Amino acid sequence: MKKLAVVAFGGNALLRAGQKGTIDEQEANAYVASKSTVKLIDRGYNLVLTHGNGPQVGNILLANTAGNKLYGIPDMPLDISVGYSQGFIGYILEQQLRNVLMSKDLDRDVITMLTQVLVNKDDEAFQDPVKPVGPFFTKEEAEKIMKESESVFKEDAAGRGWRKVVASPKPLVIYNMRSIEKIAREGHIVIAVGGGGIPCFYVEENKLQGIDAVIDKDLASSLLASQIRADKLFILTDVPKVCLNFNTPQEKTIDRMSIFEAKKYLNEGQFGEGSMGPKIKAAINFVEHSGKDAIITETSLLGVDDGGTRVTMV
Amino acid sequence: MKKLAVVAFGGNALLRAGQKGTIDEQEANAYVASKSTVKLIDRGYNLVLTHGNGPQVGNILLANTAGNKLYGIPDMPLDISVGYSQGFIGYILEQQLRNVLMSKDLDRDVITMLTQVLVNKDDEAFQDPVKPVGPFFTKEEAEKIMKESESVFKEDAAGRGWRKVVASPKPLVIYNMRSIEKIAREGHIVIAVGGGGIPCFYVEENKLQGIDAVIDKDLASSLLASQIRADKLFILTDVPKVCLNFNTPQEKTIDRMSIFEAKKYLNEGQFGEGSMGPKIKAAINFVEHSGKDAIITETSLLGVDDGGTRVTMV
Repeated sequence: MKKLAVVAFGGNALLRAGQKGTIDEQEANAYVASKSTVKLIDRGYNLVLTHGNGPQVGNILLANTAGNKLYGIPDMPLDISVGYSQGFIGYILEQQLRNVLMSKDLDRDVITMLTQVLVNKDDEAFQDPVKPVGPFFTKEEAEKIMKESESVFKEDAAGRGWRKVVASPKPLVIYNMRSIEKIAREGHIVIAVGGGGIPCFYVEENKLQGIDAVIDKDLASSLLASQIRADKLFILTDVPKVCLNFNTPQEKTIDRMSIFEAKKYLNEGQFGEGSMGPKIKAAINFVEHSGKDAIITETSLLGVDDGGTRVTMV
Repeated sequence: MKKLAVVAFGGNALLRAGQKGTIDEQEANAYVASKSTVKLIDRGYNLVLTHGNGPQVGNILLANTAGNKLYGIPDMPLDISVGYSQGFIGYILEQQLRNVLMSKDLDRDVITMLTQVLVNKDDEAFQDPVKPVGPFFTKEEAEKIMKESESVFKEDAAGRGWRKVVASPKPLVIYNMRSIEKIAREGHIVIAVGGGGIPCFYVEENKLQGIDAVIDKDLASSLLASQIRADKLFILTDVPKVCLNFNTPQEKTIDRMSIFEAKKYLNEGQFGEGSMGPKIKAAINFVEHSGKDAIITETSLLGVDDGGTRVTMV
């Protein structure tokens, strides 16, 4: 049986810092990412790909706000916007993967599956939402929206205005998980859990409903990887390896660390809260539940056997 | 082996004429549609659902235009907007289907698959694009966009302004077709070919690219239904049966017609070009290629054995 890998792309794999985010740019980035990813097939892996959606969902929320202001289009809540972003990013990735597969004469389907993810309304994250999403508003606009809805706004630390904040609850169930595993093990490439998944909860018995929240995509990817019994989780970032004392004269790259060491470094505050920290936590999570290795690295090193930082059980 | 049905929803199954299109409205409509659809499972069918996206993609294009004007967000071409709409509508349908399945204690996955559909750049439809999409512009705005891009604009017959028109080429290949069939025959519900599919073409060898076009969703659904050897194609509309002399004192409903009769009525101009006509053509197409029956009816009659108009080979 072939090995199964889950590969988690960042949202910036397609829309890079400093780029405008035109479709041409995002397609070109997706093609490069796809070429590296398909090398994992040469290395004997079947593939499930996941991806972030930060920059894209930001633009989607802006466009929604603008459409509401200019044309009175009804508001689209965050769960719907995540659905948009899965359709958008999934399509761009799917198409470029097809192009790479064709150029290598590999005949397999690329299946982008919308993914709902269950969260708990009682998750403590809902007590104090901290994840900023969407456009900036003036204090007056923000106060008006807060009065008319259940949204929470906070003032931006850098003084750019007021911005909606949402909770980032723990992912509990990845819907369609069994099908994702089956299709991938049959040799097709599955793209799933885009943007961490569309968050939903049980508003009553037998009734799922979307909720204004954002699920950490690395955490959702790690849950998926454990549950589908993946042999490896690749978490992609923009550096080749994890570093200690990052950006200091004592900077040191890590080739391999046990989850014991990883937890120690995490407690020491070695990894940025909004950047490397969540990736380390997701890697620990996967290794702890599966006993298999997680790799943190950059996209271009997917084809290399010992590329990146290996996170191991012991 | 269970029978396999393809069920084609209109975009207005979720967003009805006269409604604003809020998410609450669309979710409520989707729940009603899902309840009727699941009755086909009781009737012994496995299911592939397809859907239109007319009203939704209209709002998406408006929001894009507004986002570009107010915030300088890069333009999203039509293929990307169809991707958005597959993510959006697919999610709403998927969630309400889950709710209906749970309430009936039925355990099957609901899998929404993005769908790319191949078209030919030399399709004669590209010679004279006629399908209007997106917002109205002034003559000056339209001329400016036409100068800066390959877009074609035409003046609206009702004098509402200038509007972009795109081609509606013939669908040639439904990507992931084999996987759609396999997953549905395993008993899961597949949602696919939303909005007729994301249109793409070969810009060069081994290179697929999206294209500004709209594929007729009934035609794409009928192609899918033939290719996955469906036992029945249900094409949903807002009347229980097809009528002759529609809206006249001689109006007469049809219980059953052969494709020979259907073609005759079509030639007589019995069916509206933008409404019933395309559904009749799609039904003929399916029956001709498969030898099986197509049913044209409204959603609420899906649970009834002899509901709707049956289109047959002879």
